[in-house]
Amino acid sequence: MQMMKLRKSVLDANLEIVKRGLALHTFGNASGIERGATPKESVVAIKPSGVPYETLIPEDIVLTDLEGNVLDGALRPSSDLDTHLLLYREFPDIGGIVHTHSEFATAWAQACKAIPVFGTTHADYFHGPIPVTEPLTKQEVNHGYVLNTGRVIVRCFREGGLNPTAMPAVLVAGHAPFAWGATPAKAVEHADILEFVARLAYRTVALEGPSEGIPLHVRDHHYFRKHGAKATYGQK
Amino acid sequence: MQMMKLRKSVLDANLEIVKRGLALHTFGNASGIERGATPKESVVAIKPSGVPYETLIPEDIVLTDLEGNVLDGALRPSSDLDTHLLLYREFPDIGGIVHTHSEFATAWAQACKAIPVFGTTHADYFHGPIPVTEPLTKQEVNHGYVLNTGRVIVRCFREGGLNPTAMPAVLVAGHAPFAWGATPAKAVEHADILEFVARLAYRTVALEGPSEGIPLHVRDHHYFRKHGAKATYGQK
Amino acid sequence: MQMMKLRKSVLDANLEIVKRGLALHTFGNASGIERGATPKESVVAIKPSGVPYETLIPEDIVLTDLEGNVLDGALRPSSDLDTHLLLYREFPDIGGIVHTHSEFATAWAQACKAIPVFGTTHADYFHGPIPVTEPLTKQEVNHGYVLNTGRVIVRCFREGGLNPTAMPAVLVAGHAPFAWGATPAKAVEHADILEFVARLAYRTVALEGPSEGIPLHVRDHHYFRKHGAKATYGQK
Amino acid sequence: MQMMKLRKSVLDANLEIVKRGLALHTFGNASGIERGATPKESVVAIKPSGVPYETLIPEDIVLTDLEGNVLDGALRPSSDLDTHLLLYREFPDIGGIVHTHSEFATAWAQACKAIPVFGTTHADYFHGPIPVTEPLTKQEVNHGYVLNTGRVIVRCFREGGLNPTAMPAVLVAGHAPFAWGATPAKAVEHADILEFVARLAYRTVALEGPSEGIPLHVRDHHYFRKHGAKATYGQK
Repeated sequence: MQMMKLRKSVLDANLEIVKRGLALHTFGNASGIERGATPKESVVAIKPSGVPYETLIPEDIVLTDLEGNVLDGALRPSSDLDTHLLLYREFPDIGGIVHTHSEFATAWAQACKAIPVFGTTHADYFHGPIPVTEPLTKQEVNHGYVLNTGRVIVRCFREGGLNPTAMPAVLVAGHAPFAWGATPAKAVEHADILEFVARLAYRTVALEGPSEGIPLHVRDHHYFRKHGAKATYGQK
Repeated sequence: MQMMKLRKSVLDANLEIVKRGLALHTFGNASGIERGATPKESVVAIKPSGVPYETLIPEDIVLTDLEGNVLDGALRPSSDLDTHLLLYREFPDIGGIVHTHSEFATAWAQACKAIPVFGTTHADYFHGPIPVTEPLTKQEVNHGYVLNTGRVIVRCFREGGLNPTAMPAVLVAGHAPFAWGATPAKAVEHADILEFVARLAYRTVALEGPSEGIPLHVRDHHYFRKHGAKATYGQK
Repeated sequence: MQMMKLRKSVLDANLEIVKRGLALHTFGNASGIERGATPKESVVAIKPSGVPYETLIPEDIVLTDLEGNVLDGALRPSSDLDTHLLLYREFPDIGGIVHTHSEFATAWAQACKAIPVFGTTHADYFHGPIPVTEPLTKQEVNHGYVLNTGRVIVRCFREGGLNPTAMPAVLVAGHAPFAWGATPAKAVEHADILEFVARLAYRTVALEGPSEGIPLHVRDHHYFRKHGAKATYGQK
Repeated sequence: MQMMKLRKSVLDANLEIVKRGLALHTFGNASGIERGATPKESVVAIKPSGVPYETLIPEDIVLTDLEGNVLDGALRPSSDLDTHLLLYREFPDIGGIVHTHSEFATAWAQACKAIPVFGTTHADYFHGPIPVTEPLTKQEVNHGYVLNTGRVIVRCFREGGLNPTAMPAVLVAGHAPFAWGATPAKAVEHADILEFVARLAYRTVALEGPSEGIPLHVRDHHYFRKHGAKATYGQK
């Protein structure tokens, strides 16, 4: 019952990826987690690998524990499963992850550049520049590539002193973005806003805007009016 | 009764923002005013804060006086209310205001650049380059940010000798555009044409067009064939 | 009866402008001509000025002779009427004209640059670079602006030795494109392909393609396999 | 019966070209082949020339042998037939070919530049940079242009040591892309992903990403996890 609800929320997030134009063909995937006392008692629900979005039903969503053992589901899980699992293990406050190849976020990832904070649209959602990882080494690619993709993300956050709650997205160099949130629905919302922010930043660069972006006091003001104890945005 | 009509026109303008692709998620807002003899007797109708467009009904539109006292409405008004109110107080001829984060206008705002008059599409609607404000100081951000956003707009118009009727839009540096007009419907029309003009100007810059734009005699001719006593465009 | 058919073809061309995304709001217009023995016996059908496309009916299409005298219609003709009339008088082989502010063609017009022949898509329809006019002088703008817009187009063709049949479009500097053809339907098809060619050329410039475009032998081959006595494209 | 199935698959691929936004008007075409023991016993099915996509029915698809003799069909085959036939003769493992003038792939073709491997989206489908041909000489254009278009493609693959199975697309300089695959459906899928990859690469160049693209070990890893004996992507 509980599991059907998790599967449904993950299915919805996957369909939202398509609805918002964030994926072509079978690219991209969304997952969610129901955290338990231990990794073995936690349940991760994820899109099956290479299945067209339009035919997905809740039962197709694969269930695994946090170590990747399949609990239920007739299909193979997404080939990106190990990245999702590592992020869930390392970022204990997140409840959903979305991976896309959305156009502008992927262009920044391919350009191996972090997205500067050029405006308040960015600052409303992401507390600082959206980081880009280091490229994976040959060794990391050839042995445990998918797991290592998670590791370069975690390393990027550790070394940059970044908080996954205040910075719910990352660009994997030469690849594409990952976004996350408290729920699968929040993760896909962040993936969508990331794409819009990446698009705005691309246009700003083309117009030769100020390379350093907006001042720190504007960033902080906008971020904290939407997040944390003193947030004033939206209905109570 | 009167108020229901005002609310309806503001609701329609908000929905038009979405229909024309000027806003993502809950970004953006529209308001309208029924002016009275005094600020306390004037009624401003504005979108509630952070409510999805698709669920909005006329009763959700919040009514306040020109000082921001809520007259009617169960929801919180838009977090940008104070900017709207200041513009209504300082620009006495306007009847509707629309704020969006539309893609190309926002890119120009983020680049902190006014939009030059590159062609007659621009000149038909805006009598001169579309201005960009100064950035807000740290002091202005931390104390009364929303009100101060209105103040930098007004200052930009005062210092530039601009007439809000002939220049019905502005770019707030590092943020996004505001547009206005005689009614909420006119305001959203201006926001939409601003976005198209910003898009054309972006493309013109990419093609390395003449940086000074079209000559003054063309600007004036186009503007005045659509506006003022000698206008010849449209049906009588 | 004959006139109803002309009006209908002009209405269809106007609606096609919108359907193909070539115009925003009331921008743009299409006309057609039924040529008679003299200018006074010729009938031009044109969109009324400033009327929304969605409400247009055949009776709204204004009929004039080639000198601009209204023959039938309750509405004012398009404010661009005099440009259309001059083109019909000077280019005796054309039967329909379309004016748009389509995004990429307008960007090239605003940049005051002819569109080079970068590829066969262009060469299939336009026999050479798509020309851009000189800007209008102050005198030309202030006295007979709309007629003079036609005159700079005609001058551009005369001085460039261009044939309006082989080059069914032009960019008016700082303004936007005009396209034409044997019928209103052909004119709107050319306006649409012009926009696509302008878009491709914009992208090619951004990628720093060869500035001189494709060689003359490719241009000629492609143009003449679709046009003239030796054309081989399509069904017989 | 067999032939009706072939025609149907070719019709579907042609309609998919339109559905995915890869062609304007009658641009573009798809074909398929049922290979026989000899060229005369092979059957190629191809779109008729210059017929609007929306009116196509299976019987309109023209059938020829591998030497271009029409076997069945009342309409003229696509003017690009000779290019398709040569590719089928020279690349014996392909079963479908798609030609489009899709926006970004055509821009790269017009810029006469190969598309570098900037990311894993590219590497998942194309094993190396997507090649661009030499321009055709005047002689090649004037005598057997369509056949020679096929020849420059084949020469490009021979000289570059490229395998048409691992590189299912090419850019013809100053013209547009061709893509192919085991079936007409696969060919159109490759044409669609080529367009997306071309779009991502265009954006990456604009952001001044690393001109050399991603390292070889990433390219190989991504390509081989989707192709060949050790592929792990998708359902078994």
